[in-house]
Amino acid sequence: MGIVLGPNQYGKAEIRVVAVDRTGPRHELRDLTVSTALRGDFAAAHQAGDNAHVLATDTQKNTVFAFARDGVGEIEDFGLRLARHLAGAYPWITAARVEVAEHPWQQVEPHGHAFARSGEGEARTAVVTVDSGRRYVLSGLSGLVLLKTTGSSFAGFPRDRFTTLAETDDRILATAVTARWRHADPADRAPHSAVRAALIETFATLDSKALQQTLYAMGEAVLRRHPGVVEIRLSLPNRHHVQQDLTPFGRDNLKVVYHVDDRPYGLIEGTVTRDGAPPAGPAWEATPAFC
Amino acid sequence: MGIVLGPNQYGKAEIRVVAVDRTGPRHELRDLTVSTALRGDFAAAHQAGDNAHVLATDTQKNTVFAFARDGVGEIEDFGLRLARHLAGAYPWITAARVEVAEHPWQQVEPHGHAFARSGEGEARTAVVTVDSGRRYVLSGLSGLVLLKTTGSSFAGFPRDRFTTLAETDDRILATAVTARWRHADPADRAPHSAVRAALIETFATLDSKALQQTLYAMGEAVLRRHPGVVEIRLSLPNRHHVQQDLTPFGRDNLKVVYHVDDRPYGLIEGTVTRDGAPPAGPAWEATPAFC
Amino acid sequence: MGIVLGPNQYGKAEIRVVAVDRTGPRHELRDLTVSTALRGDFAAAHQAGDNAHVLATDTQKNTVFAFARDGVGEIEDFGLRLARHLAGAYPWITAARVEVAEHPWQQVEPHGHAFARSGEGEARTAVVTVDSGRRYVLSGLSGLVLLKTTGSSFAGFPRDRFTTLAETDDRILATAVTARWRHADPADRAPHSAVRAALIETFATLDSKALQQTLYAMGEAVLRRHPGVVEIRLSLPNRHHVQQDLTPFGRDNLKVVYHVDDRPYGLIEGTVTRDGAPPAGPAWEATPAFC
Amino acid sequence: MGIVLGPNQYGKAEIRVVAVDRTGPRHELRDLTVSTALRGDFAAAHQAGDNAHVLATDTQKNTVFAFARDGVGEIEDFGLRLARHLAGAYPWITAARVEVAEHPWQQVEPHGHAFARSGEGEARTAVVTVDSGRRYVLSGLSGLVLLKTTGSSFAGFPRDRFTTLAETDDRILATAVTARWRHADPADRAPHSAVRAALIETFATLDSKALQQTLYAMGEAVLRRHPGVVEIRLSLPNRHHVQQDLTPFGRDNLKVVYHVDDRPYGLIEGTVTRDGAPPAGPAWEATPAFC
Repeated sequence: MGIVLGPNQYGKAEIRVVAVDRTGPRHELRDLTVSTALRGDFAAAHQAGDNAHVLATDTQKNTVFAFARDGVGEIEDFGLRLARHLAGAYPWITAARVEVAEHPWQQVEPHGHAFARSGEGEARTAVVTVDSGRRYVLSGLSGLVLLKTTGSSFAGFPRDRFTTLAETDDRILATAVTARWRHADPADRAPHSAVRAALIETFATLDSKALQQTLYAMGEAVLRRHPGVVEIRLSLPNRHHVQQDLTPFGRDNLKVVYHVDDRPYGLIEGTVTRDGAPPAGPAWEATPAFC
Repeated sequence: MGIVLGPNQYGKAEIRVVAVDRTGPRHELRDLTVSTALRGDFAAAHQAGDNAHVLATDTQKNTVFAFARDGVGEIEDFGLRLARHLAGAYPWITAARVEVAEHPWQQVEPHGHAFARSGEGEARTAVVTVDSGRRYVLSGLSGLVLLKTTGSSFAGFPRDRFTTLAETDDRILATAVTARWRHADPADRAPHSAVRAALIETFATLDSKALQQTLYAMGEAVLRRHPGVVEIRLSLPNRHHVQQDLTPFGRDNLKVVYHVDDRPYGLIEGTVTRDGAPPAGPAWEATPAFC
Repeated sequence: MGIVLGPNQYGKAEIRVVAVDRTGPRHELRDLTVSTALRGDFAAAHQAGDNAHVLATDTQKNTVFAFARDGVGEIEDFGLRLARHLAGAYPWITAARVEVAEHPWQQVEPHGHAFARSGEGEARTAVVTVDSGRRYVLSGLSGLVLLKTTGSSFAGFPRDRFTTLAETDDRILATAVTARWRHADPADRAPHSAVRAALIETFATLDSKALQQTLYAMGEAVLRRHPGVVEIRLSLPNRHHVQQDLTPFGRDNLKVVYHVDDRPYGLIEGTVTRDGAPPAGPAWEATPAFC
Repeated sequence: MGIVLGPNQYGKAEIRVVAVDRTGPRHELRDLTVSTALRGDFAAAHQAGDNAHVLATDTQKNTVFAFARDGVGEIEDFGLRLARHLAGAYPWITAARVEVAEHPWQQVEPHGHAFARSGEGEARTAVVTVDSGRRYVLSGLSGLVLLKTTGSSFAGFPRDRFTTLAETDDRILATAVTARWRHADPADRAPHSAVRAALIETFATLDSKALQQTLYAMGEAVLRRHPGVVEIRLSLPNRHHVQQDLTPFGRDNLKVVYHVDDRPYGLIEGTVTRDGAPPAGPAWEATPAFC
């Protein structure tokens, strides 16, 4: 009847893995959330309920735990080992995608056996795709919440009949950074901490005339300092902080008291890329559009 | 330096709008969450902080409220009116994307002025893109939670050295449906309630050998019954319900008592499409990959 | 040193249990979240790490699953059976508290094997305490989201120097009801559906001059109709719906378009009780103050 | 009819306030969520819809913003100023309760104008009640997530017919601390950072035989070091980390790889108090039972 199966994938999502390296005097703690997805020839499962090609998602989960036994290392490398194994498990599997989020902990006592979560929200992330034997790696972070109390303005925007926003030459700028960046060579990656530092430093020091400008500058700083990074996508919600009107109570408010609204929020999304970057292939597939 | 701006968009996310139609004897209540995004030439904002092209996200929000004053109608039409206006607001804006989620309410008394939320979680959705004067419409739903107590098996899958899952000929199958479907003609759309009914009926009645099979059958049913639907994408988490082992307490458990785990979960994503469907254009851009 | 152990309890929280009754032609599905807590003499565990008195929370979890094997019935009765067992398990356990939330499902096909969640948010609740052989039962509900488009005003409130709110004679009133009610006789309980209907009907029909008035009327209606209910506690957030100002765009807004803010919200909490009600004992202990 | 109004309170919940102190060379940022509640004679509002006594929750919100204009200081002091004002606003108001949560930020550049959230989840908290002219202050924290990789066992617990848990002499122990502590003199408070450090240090260093033992030791350490603290309540979820069974794949698992389940979790709640502590009065009213 002309009805056909289109693109599809399946896997196990949000496997929570904690791995402890007890070999040194101080324990090392790795706290990961891992998701897997397989692509390939799964038509018979969809169209006839024939599971001969379906590597069970439970098996994929087991594989993640088994691989964690051998040590995690950088999450990009852990993802690569897993994706390579999954993509090569059976001939009908053409591609595997592994997403890893790492949740940070800090040691809190001298002996190195006790830890405190250093941020419930921030995570280091990796998205690894192995497709037809080729490797694609996105490094990233999410939940990095930044705010500056000055050095941000917003003016000169067009005014149509629905425009009521006043121009401002000094506002609070606040966001929660989601960023992903692509490496020219998956095996030769800029240090994650250096990229993170570049993002923070640029946010902090740029005299921002628009969150778009901040976004581009953050991306540009990363690409400028790290020649191996060929593309970065950023998603920056604008968490509006608005001066509370205190004049009804006979008070001024010289940029002291702000109310913060949860919704709606501005959402600025963009890509900064290197001219002549190698093709992205499936690196961004099944990844939210801008990060 | 060879560093350039790539794809980008910006807008206002999650505008919470409630509109009441008081013209009839029974009030009509519409509860929407609306997000907008603009694409076009915003290079100067990114690269020089020049906002002359930046229609403020606050203005976009105002526009949504002003348009709601004239009535909402079907959310696809509301999205189309908004997207057409936004895309045409200034020459440098080439495309506008409007996402609408509608939250359902039921009247709870005879006079039609009191309502109860009929599902905190389920929403009817629409994603509308107007790009270079062309219209693209995705209808959809999210948060439709379905479960069947029988009529689902999972067997015949390959067993590698990491496979421990037993085959089952009768399991609970549970999911939370996210679906989006594309119309050949944005103005001639299959009724939303009919598509929703087809999804539910297929889930309920198919003797399922894999969640992949259920996914395909759900999509196929929609396309078969509604010739104007040319493509549907489904994302189906497999919310595992596992029989609790009661044998240590000397009890059997004949498919009576199950534990439910939040994470991890299987995630089955796929597309069912019509041969020769008109090209999707930017319809799915900036939409999570499979719905 | 004068430092002593004060009140304490421990148990297993949020055990997710699904039970299927397959004995009839139509399956019955029960979806519960159960929490347990024990009180008694656990001083040695706290002060010396001696666990001889500590019935493991894992054991408590197993007990919940084992008891579900024998059928659930009304959640208050299920709670009573569990609490009686746990409180009587060892002589040093003086009290057990079992909280149950039931999540509603509706059958969606004629054969009675497929179900849809009829509300992600609403739950029927029970809090059962067995203490020194006496039983205390609170029935309740949470997440019942109600809204009325007319029949609500707010005026006549005092105006001090911080008051800016205008009086209104016709506003939207919206809330999410959390309610718990106490029975004179735990074994002779008003039907849950009747109490729920009384709450909804009163919210819908009362011409409300304050959410406090609505709260009291809702509670009074329950007590008036159900002599066996001796006390009800209600917690009603005031989910503010505020008319959006459209005058800057040359538009009126005759109670048509509202914006909805997530936070802050009013929070109205209160108790309606029967004169001469039997003492509550520990019924409300470890329960949030007003419901 | 013998139906009467029982305990009640009302106020504005979750007011999001950000205050910036720009008077020094480095800005100081305070990020608060404030909730207020009033108690007193509000019977007419409940029973007749007469709002003459109802200080509007909108006014309470305005009051919070106005007071923030004068500086925040320690959140306990901010809460005291607010509660004193609200409780004294009108003769029929007998008590006011103010809850404050402070969200931490860290400066991220040398000039002191840019900040990063140092923990999405952790908050410093205060609950202040002014009742009939007397002040009650609880200091606290929530969302402090701690884990130790060794130094925790669980054995010697009773085994009934539902017990399947194996004893362990070396497990991971992980929790998210919620704690509140009461001061003998609200104006002479132990430094918050010192109490927090005592909680962390005790968790880290105690060789724990039960989470109950850890809870008591944490509370005892605080009371021992800070004579002005007369009572502390702790709520410690036991976030189970369970060794993944790798034997089906021919692998050992020497305390290396753990899976983490979201639910259910143990929940250990307790109080450590000082003999002869002054009475708590309404300090804990409307506060979840154990913190």
